[in-house]
Amino acid sequence: MSPSKTLWESTDRTLKEKEAGSPHKEKHAAHGELVRDAIIGFADGLTVPFALTAGLSSLGSAKLVILGGLAELFAGSLSMGLGAYLAAVTEAKHYEVEELRERAEVKEKPLAEEDEVYEIFEQYGIERAQSKGVVEGLKANEDMWVRFMMDFELKLEKPRTKMAWIEGIVMAVTYFFGGLLPMIPYFAFKNVTHALFTSIGITALILVVFGYVKALVTGCRHIDAVWSAVQTLLVGAVAAGASYGIVRGVNSAENVTAMTG
Amino acid sequence: MSPSKTLWESTDRTLKEKEAGSPHKEKHAAHGELVRDAIIGFADGLTVPFALTAGLSSLGSAKLVILGGLAELFAGSLSMGLGAYLAAVTEAKHYEVEELRERAEVKEKPLAEEDEVYEIFEQYGIERAQSKGVVEGLKANEDMWVRFMMDFELKLEKPRTKMAWIEGIVMAVTYFFGGLLPMIPYFAFKNVTHALFTSIGITALILVVFGYVKALVTGCRHIDAVWSAVQTLLVGAVAAGASYGIVRGVNSAENVTAMTG
Repeated sequence: MSPSKTLWESTDRTLKEKEAGSPHKEKHAAHGELVRDAIIGFADGLTVPFALTAGLSSLGSAKLVILGGLAELFAGSLSMGLGAYLAAVTEAKHYEVEELRERAEVKEKPLAEEDEVYEIFEQYGIERAQSKGVVEGLKANEDMWVRFMMDFELKLEKPRTKMAWIEGIVMAVTYFFGGLLPMIPYFAFKNVTHALFTSIGITALILVVFGYVKALVTGCRHIDAVWSAVQTLLVGAVAAGASYGIVRGVNSAENVTAMTG
Repeated sequence: MSPSKTLWESTDRTLKEKEAGSPHKEKHAAHGELVRDAIIGFADGLTVPFALTAGLSSLGSAKLVILGGLAELFAGSLSMGLGAYLAAVTEAKHYEVEELRERAEVKEKPLAEEDEVYEIFEQYGIERAQSKGVVEGLKANEDMWVRFMMDFELKLEKPRTKMAWIEGIVMAVTYFFGGLLPMIPYFAFKNVTHALFTSIGITALILVVFGYVKALVTGCRHIDAVWSAVQTLLVGAVAAGASYGIVRGVNSAENVTAMTG
């Protein structure tokens, strides 16, 4: 499954790029964000084109379904990929801005910053007497102090800008192929209804497997994974049902032949 | 603009829910993740339905555009919202699993965990002699020690599960209304070409404003904000162009009237 693949690849990237920390640590660190991206990205890629084509199938024309589906695939994968790329770039910019600001604070009002370090540790019930050593250590090295503030005060992870393109491409490709799968039956069958049911079958299967693998990858137990698979399937069903209903409803209100002139 | 609004609301949520830290700190902390979500979410909501409807407009029927657009709006906003909700729930689950594991490690091999704390500080050039006080402080309180490891070793932020529903709803609503805007002209004009150009105008305007506000909210300077606005506009243009091109291409290959029978 692409999402979990992405997950592991990115974990490896994190491992390579972060100097410190044992694999198991970094794997954890990499998860949180990527799990989210992978789930939203792939679930969309699979669900939206499926639901859209299901909705359009109520018009009774396989070709219309294919045209609408292709329009969605290109629109979706491009905006998804470019969106992810731009988001990564914006994040990097944001980090840069905050880092400059933090460095200025360390330079211009070190006492206030010193206090902030003490406050960070006080959140964990550590008295100033106990954290004094760390504070002294940070004061001795401005770069390390700034890095510490970025990590522990602002909790901003240094973005891997060189990854922005790759992230964008991965997201676009995942979305495109995820979205292509539910459309295949409409290429294969002349009969839209047959195509629709085959498409539902294919998508349901993938959604279940995806939901299951997804949950396992995030470290859930099998029972939770099954529940997650069911949930993922429900998302697809609800989205497709709503889409089918609205198209059929609007369409029966209007005469379809009048529309397609 | 909904995304920046979402951004601030969520920031306020974070402020309310996190016991420690000054407003400016938490604002920072909240940004990173939310910026990304807001950008991807809203950009998609606006871009995909716009690009899809632009693509379908090449078929020459406003009604087809509206049907395809509505199918996409419902499919997109539902899968987006439910996807975001499930992602939040999965994250919470993931956090829970990791926390249990961390607590077990603290209980069962405290010396190894102690070492990991020292290693964290060594990453910032702080010697063991200097960080000893903090380590002793953590050892005195298991809960705090586990929280410290979650924050500074795994760098996992405690998910706000009660927010999962709200996040999902916000995302779905944002997507829906973002996607509705480019469709309005197709309701208004009988002539698809007029509708298309009006839709392009409306979307371009919103994308530019959105891109600009977005960049300012993330703390960029005006010049960067302008550049960001241009980028956001380009995404929309590329996606719509590709969608229009593919539909027109496939459509001219096939006879449209044959298709819509």
